[in-house]
Amino acid sequence: MIVELVCVGTELLLGNIVNTNAAYLAEMCARLGLSMYYQSVVGDNEERMTQVIAQAVDRSDVVILCGGLGPTQDDLTKEVTAKVMGMKLVEDEHTRNCIQEYMNNLFVGRPDAKITDNNWKQALVPEGALILDNANGTAPGLIIEENGKIVILLPGPPNELKPMFENQVYPYLREKQPEVILSRMIKICGIGESAVEDKIQDMIDAQNNPTIATYAKTGEVHLRVTARAESEAEAKKMIKPVVRELKVRFGKNIYTTDEHKTLEECVIDLLKDQELELTTVESCTGGALAARLVNVPGASDVLKQGLVTYSNKSKRKFTLVKKSTLKDEGAVSHKTAKEMAKGAVENTGCDVSVSVTGLAGPNGGTKEKPVGLVYIGCCYKGKTTVREFHFNGNRSKVREQAVVQGLVLLRDCILENYVNE
Amino acid sequence: MIVELVCVGTELLLGNIVNTNAAYLAEMCARLGLSMYYQSVVGDNEERMTQVIAQAVDRSDVVILCGGLGPTQDDLTKEVTAKVMGMKLVEDEHTRNCIQEYMNNLFVGRPDAKITDNNWKQALVPEGALILDNANGTAPGLIIEENGKIVILLPGPPNELKPMFENQVYPYLREKQPEVILSRMIKICGIGESAVEDKIQDMIDAQNNPTIATYAKTGEVHLRVTARAESEAEAKKMIKPVVRELKVRFGKNIYTTDEHKTLEECVIDLLKDQELELTTVESCTGGALAARLVNVPGASDVLKQGLVTYSNKSKRKFTLVKKSTLKDEGAVSHKTAKEMAKGAVENTGCDVSVSVTGLAGPNGGTKEKPVGLVYIGCCYKGKTTVREFHFNGNRSKVREQAVVQGLVLLRDCILENYVNE
Repeated sequence: MIVELVCVGTELLLGNIVNTNAAYLAEMCARLGLSMYYQSVVGDNEERMTQVIAQAVDRSDVVILCGGLGPTQDDLTKEVTAKVMGMKLVEDEHTRNCIQEYMNNLFVGRPDAKITDNNWKQALVPEGALILDNANGTAPGLIIEENGKIVILLPGPPNELKPMFENQVYPYLREKQPEVILSRMIKICGIGESAVEDKIQDMIDAQNNPTIATYAKTGEVHLRVTARAESEAEAKKMIKPVVRELKVRFGKNIYTTDEHKTLEECVIDLLKDQELELTTVESCTGGALAARLVNVPGASDVLKQGLVTYSNKSKRKFTLVKKSTLKDEGAVSHKTAKEMAKGAVENTGCDVSVSVTGLAGPNGGTKEKPVGLVYIGCCYKGKTTVREFHFNGNRSKVREQAVVQGLVLLRDCILENYVNE
Repeated sequence: MIVELVCVGTELLLGNIVNTNAAYLAEMCARLGLSMYYQSVVGDNEERMTQVIAQAVDRSDVVILCGGLGPTQDDLTKEVTAKVMGMKLVEDEHTRNCIQEYMNNLFVGRPDAKITDNNWKQALVPEGALILDNANGTAPGLIIEENGKIVILLPGPPNELKPMFENQVYPYLREKQPEVILSRMIKICGIGESAVEDKIQDMIDAQNNPTIATYAKTGEVHLRVTARAESEAEAKKMIKPVVRELKVRFGKNIYTTDEHKTLEECVIDLLKDQELELTTVESCTGGALAARLVNVPGASDVLKQGLVTYSNKSKRKFTLVKKSTLKDEGAVSHKTAKEMAKGAVENTGCDVSVSVTGLAGPNGGTKEKPVGLVYIGCCYKGKTTVREFHFNGNRSKVREQAVVQGLVLLRDCILENYVNE
């Protein structure tokens, strides 16, 4: 089935916001095995919207529209779609009740608040449309099946759109697909994109079904293995040997096969599992490594403190780096990274530490120590490992890569000494 | 003039990447006073690309295409555009030399590296096109003027597209505009979006030329004042009283009127100007406040260290928070924020500190201390100021807002004691 995406909103045409909905919906459609040939953006203008929707319905099997379902006069998506599909708008009592209930909850503690009349516009639906309840807003989603075409209308705010798609649209579209599409995610760290591709070039060249798609992230590579089959059992059977082969080829570089897990989550899990307390010590990343770990709820179980030793004085005070080391080797050196990691463990009594010192640029680089040079250290069980990196890119890119490689080194050092109880 | 944007790339249709180019180019076009009615995305498919480009050229005055200019067989944008416009492709010697030079630089220190034949495809250009040199890659950009239409081809990677647009396309399009479009940016912090809108509702209601556009960012509001006039001098004259009025209404809440400056940059400038050394002390933001300051090159002149005191023990050790305070008031309390800020100054000898402690969630909230409760402190010149916040949103949203309000409080405290020499 061919799917087309139409996003409605003047704010997209003015560049006020980035169209993250398009990327999200495109990835979801790819996962469903739908072929997306076109995406478009149009403003809240009746004539142009009519033209875009009519063209989409004409050339695609499924059209997903998002945005323009709100209560104001500007919001035209539903009205224009109904016209294009030749359908009448009627009031839906269930939706009217949902809006009432949603607003009542919103108004708790505000006795003066009143539902404005324009809100009831949102209870009008094309006659015969499937209604998708909106748990996070007042505009319901809609699915229209007419003349062999499917048109799906979704609210624009991502916090309304995403749960509605996942819980209601995804299962609906999956039912419509003649085949079952199943995929598995393999997340890899500590090895570059081109090295990953080299290692599986033969598998990619030979692939047909299942397929392997490569997604390069900063410091990570994600592989999605997707199979199409007549049943879920069959698809699973097809995916299994491919995943097994990938596990053989990438071994410990695979940090998870869980779609929703992040690298920082897996590192926190590992620390929890080994009952370790962590301290971070950062110079050029300036706290970004600690902040990334704190993304994970419950990080406080393992991350006890983070030190941003941005000056030489603070490197000496908080992580006991020697004056002579800073003088002879410099703040960006193998030895400083080592002493930072070691000193952090000594000064805090933690079990493990990870240190980062480097030149993020744009200034301060020399021929011997160019911008992008970063040393990352990890002190664990009395041993301190230091790795040297030469990262490409601007200041923020260098720092982002350093954060990921800090997580990777930490993970490697713990895995090396893994205690299985 | 009506402008239309066409982005080419299968990776956009699969949702592998977010289309940030579209937002960037849309904002730039809005700034140029061009009206954008449509954006679309199409894959590397000759038939569909032909259809999309032909339609765009038909209905718009200016068509900006981005992506698909690379050296591979898949890259078709230039070939399809030439066909649609009825133009012949010819080799451009200047571009050939640029490619040679770019690759020579890339290959320094790699004597075995060789330019592969497919690269020369990038030296082919539609006969008579304007060539836009690419300082950051091998594919040049192109401007085609034919039959009263303008078609602009740009490379897809943002680090190639942005400088090319800013340095070459922006001035070109500005020349083409019959009117002069001039805008000024006003960046505001420490006051919410709806409060900002309330304060200028009368100005927005009455506006025609110049216009005021509101852009809500996390913890900040940006206002863009745009005037259209026959000359730059006239446009400036029109903008001036509006900017003056906004300055009266928002006073010190305006942190900059410089398009390119960020809040963290202005805070760092202020610290430098007052010759102050800073320490950050963070709990729930986990280093993100320090990391944001470190975004600014040269932050090391003022940020001496950051402490991520994520555990009670580390709050006591590094920032001298009293055991009784943690026991009686809890880690998330006015008093703890105060002692963190004060203790950081005492323990490090810095001039000023900013502290953050709060509940980012999703767990750990109670009726008295709900998720979103954050205390932010600043110790400067012997006085510690603490502000209490109740932020909405998920864990990362709460933390993001806390970081911005940390910068705002720091700025306010320094401005209050500003020394003008």
